[in-house]
Amino acid sequence: MLETTIAAIRPLDESAMTAARELHGRLTKPAGSLGALEELSVRLAGLAGACPPPLPEPAAVAIFAGDHGVHAQGVTPWPQEVTGQMIANFLAGGAVVNAFARQAGASVTVVDVGVATPLPAAETPGPAVLDPHSPRLVSASVRPGTRDLAVTAALTRDEARTAVQTGIRIADELIDAGAGILLTGDMGIGNTTPAAVLIAAFTGADPLDSTGRGTGVDDPTYARKVAVVRAALARHTPDPADPLGVLAAVGGLEHAALAGLILGAAARRTPVLLDGVIAVSAALAAAAFAPAAVGAMVAGHRSAEPGATVALRHLGLDPLIDLGLRLGEGTGALLALPVVTGAVRVLHEVATFDSAGVAEK
Amino acid sequence: MLETTIAAIRPLDESAMTAARELHGRLTKPAGSLGALEELSVRLAGLAGACPPPLPEPAAVAIFAGDHGVHAQGVTPWPQEVTGQMIANFLAGGAVVNAFARQAGASVTVVDVGVATPLPAAETPGPAVLDPHSPRLVSASVRPGTRDLAVTAALTRDEARTAVQTGIRIADELIDAGAGILLTGDMGIGNTTPAAVLIAAFTGADPLDSTGRGTGVDDPTYARKVAVVRAALARHTPDPADPLGVLAAVGGLEHAALAGLILGAAARRTPVLLDGVIAVSAALAAAAFAPAAVGAMVAGHRSAEPGATVALRHLGLDPLIDLGLRLGEGTGALLALPVVTGAVRVLHEVATFDSAGVAEK
Repeated sequence: MLETTIAAIRPLDESAMTAARELHGRLTKPAGSLGALEELSVRLAGLAGACPPPLPEPAAVAIFAGDHGVHAQGVTPWPQEVTGQMIANFLAGGAVVNAFARQAGASVTVVDVGVATPLPAAETPGPAVLDPHSPRLVSASVRPGTRDLAVTAALTRDEARTAVQTGIRIADELIDAGAGILLTGDMGIGNTTPAAVLIAAFTGADPLDSTGRGTGVDDPTYARKVAVVRAALARHTPDPADPLGVLAAVGGLEHAALAGLILGAAARRTPVLLDGVIAVSAALAAAAFAPAAVGAMVAGHRSAEPGATVALRHLGLDPLIDLGLRLGEGTGALLALPVVTGAVRVLHEVATFDSAGVAEK
Repeated sequence: MLETTIAAIRPLDESAMTAARELHGRLTKPAGSLGALEELSVRLAGLAGACPPPLPEPAAVAIFAGDHGVHAQGVTPWPQEVTGQMIANFLAGGAVVNAFARQAGASVTVVDVGVATPLPAAETPGPAVLDPHSPRLVSASVRPGTRDLAVTAALTRDEARTAVQTGIRIADELIDAGAGILLTGDMGIGNTTPAAVLIAAFTGADPLDSTGRGTGVDDPTYARKVAVVRAALARHTPDPADPLGVLAAVGGLEHAALAGLILGAAARRTPVLLDGVIAVSAALAAAAFAPAAVGAMVAGHRSAEPGATVALRHLGLDPLIDLGLRLGEGTGALLALPVVTGAVRVLHEVATFDSAGVAEK
């Protein structure tokens, strides 16, 4: 399934991109005056293989949740139980991601790929339904949290593959249910530590540059976190040409599943709007599996986490929003969604100089 | 009317701001993890004098349109007729501002404060109605375009005052009709030249730093434009302590009206979301009339025009979006609107650690 998904990912369609550039030149606005939105709409035309590309509606946020054995190393001040507690908050509609999703008309699907504590809410059964007012839980736990990557491989290769394939399956389900764009979300206390190792592994960055303060750690905790990242790289010597091996050695279950979500979206020529540092660390894995998958990625925002900027640079992506967010959950992607929709809407709705009777310069 | 409006503008309410900061600390997210959105919501609480402040809904875009005598100096390659033609496009719903406004659920009110050519569409009569699908034209022409600021004062003081008061009146009408936030829009071929003079006059910036390429001028035209700005400053020696005098000498009718809109919004404790370089040049005038008016301003985006950055720095405002737009019309403000709404929504809808049963660190 992973291999067939990777094989289905194609480069952007050049003729649709040319058509979109040409259309931009005829719309009633000075050439280039929409800045980064113009090239974004051109890329989305290339992804869809059509000009204009379809409006990216409805939007679906997929929040992959997991716990982390590396929590034992004291890399975060938050108790591990908060992962499960926040899932309950997501399902009750009380988190920031819910507020932003309701505003944007996006559905929220929470996918348990490896939460360590028992979840307080029962799974919502049935097929995917894209209802912005009814968050949904999918149980797809691979194991109750990863092993401690400071001590051993976080996952077996089979576990990592299962998580990646779960992400592909969720992408397919959401797109089959009608989603026009997928947004990445994540929840997992401690998950910026594996993200920092992944970013260092795939980009070659020094742990000091790939590691941030996550939800806000003090100086001693930050120093410990950087040391854990550095030691993990030395212990596992992850090979960036073997993304499944990297995810198994130093990843998290939500990182692996997000890589799958991205691959699944790319295979379906559906844009995937990336959130913060967890998302872009997973995007590096997806790009290692299939370089053309980058064509389906839109960088929603620049997280305050320094590793996010390292990863975005490696992927060659410019983020749409840069407001110092470091919350995760999919919140930064949701803030950027109207920009993506607006960029495509211009190609659908704006009059040409000819049709509007407006003189050119 | 101008004086009573200025007198009604009050500083931000410190107790509402303190309450908003305290509430942020109890919501289910790491402290500070929403970055710039947190301080934005705190400012809007201070403006409203309430925590949480009201959701900024519905939104109303006011596009002030005028022509410019300085067009005769060859500062733009676009014919002056395009101002009126674009108004027809706005009223037909075919411009980018219309596409973005429909997406955001914002109404569009076009105000003719001094278009030189006859307008092709009849005025829509009656009181303000906030309908995102029915753009509305208000005729309030002060004169058919300004005089050439390279030769003489663009406006008399009385004309400038009339335009400012028109902006105040439009703010009042839109707020009376229910608007929870006003967005600035503008249309006027040649209007980045008076904007560059205004920015230089109010900030002391060199014309090379306050002048940009507008809709895209070539090198000779840009050199001519900078020379016109420099000569206008030398001829009129505008006094930044006399904003009405500055607007009269070197402004445009839409710039003056936008200054009035901002003052009117501030007097009603209603946020005003600024678009690009025309808006921020008008905001400098508003701040010169009433420094506390800055409290009502939210910088929607950083225009590609360099003068916009000079003005934002002078006002102490950080923009929400920075995507190289230079279209005007209100498009940059509309892209930023969901960020503003989202920032306020967090204070309304997100659960606290206590209420959600989530542990703190």
